[in-house]
Amino acid sequence: MAHSAPSRVQLSKESILRSARVEIERNGILGLRVADVAAGANCSITQIYRYFSDRDGLLAQVLGDIYEEIVTGSGAAYRQTIFAHETLTVDIIVDSLPRVFDPAVSMGTHLRLQILAASVTNEPLRLRLEQITQAERIRWEEGLDEVEKRLAPDERFDRRMFSIFLVSILPYYRTLMGPDGFTQDDFSKFLREKMAS
Amino acid sequence: MAHSAPSRVQLSKESILRSARVEIERNGILGLRVADVAAGANCSITQIYRYFSDRDGLLAQVLGDIYEEIVTGSGAAYRQTIFAHETLTVDIIVDSLPRVFDPAVSMGTHLRLQILAASVTNEPLRLRLEQITQAERIRWEEGLDEVEKRLAPDERFDRRMFSIFLVSILPYYRTLMGPDGFTQDDFSKFLREKMAS
Repeated sequence: MAHSAPSRVQLSKESILRSARVEIERNGILGLRVADVAAGANCSITQIYRYFSDRDGLLAQVLGDIYEEIVTGSGAAYRQTIFAHETLTVDIIVDSLPRVFDPAVSMGTHLRLQILAASVTNEPLRLRLEQITQAERIRWEEGLDEVEKRLAPDERFDRRMFSIFLVSILPYYRTLMGPDGFTQDDFSKFLREKMAS
Repeated sequence: MAHSAPSRVQLSKESILRSARVEIERNGILGLRVADVAAGANCSITQIYRYFSDRDGLLAQVLGDIYEEIVTGSGAAYRQTIFAHETLTVDIIVDSLPRVFDPAVSMGTHLRLQILAASVTNEPLRLRLEQITQAERIRWEEGLDEVEKRLAPDERFDRRMFSIFLVSILPYYRTLMGPDGFTQDDFSKFLREKMAS
């Protein structure tokens, strides 16, 4: 027997989420109107509120999904690129990084920035971003363990350039990292050492 | 004779901007309604549109002013603190930095994040933030020249930790920096050196 077909609730939830994405691409996050999402999904506004509580709940789901795709997608792609090498050097590690100033990459930055800003006032979205960030942080630390194992002899590598510098990009990320993130003291120590070397 | 009194236009512009700030503190950036700003400033909506073109124009002025206060205020305060020392060490430079994880500092981060996100879709606001960032960048580079002059003998200091790491916090800042900011190659070279040391 094939696995059971998706339920009707699941199907209409998915069509609501699809419609919300189309609306966000068309009018931006701020311009999202629940009535437009309902029209696009052929359902009632009441039904959207039944599944997602309110506009914030709907945004938390859709923006959380988009954010997760950007963050876990680019992290996984990067790790795949570097782990194609049996032996790693700092040159490979740096040259494989996404070119953050390329317009294509900037698009993702803009979207991430807007989603992060929305999470300041959208509690369920913030909780979702915390989950995503903390799960991704664990994958990074595991990846960095592997990087250290594959490092060429005599190659020196300071993993804090990833775990503090690259991940933190904005102090807000540190908040999302929760209690296991680095501390102010770690950060100051890091700055002190890097500035002086 | 005293200098001439502010004009009536200037007075009503100021009361509109004051009212907009009160509304933003009360309902956030997204919740700003031009009608509420008009009510708070005892003026008509038409008058607001006459001075600021539209809601985006009003937001560009108010949010640009707030952003400028945060950025230039904290930069000036930091430089004042370190330049109270005749001779500088990396310890002084790092220990004088704002403690970015303190809740009070986080408030500013949240607001800056929201203003940056708003500028992605608000062209006049983005142009204003570019001006502010580029002016502040020049003040930083001048400050860093002074830091290097005052550096204690034998003290090593890599100014790129400021001009790339701290200023860039988010690739979006790099965009705001305009053509005089660092390049992708500067960034990669920096990462390569810092990771390997």
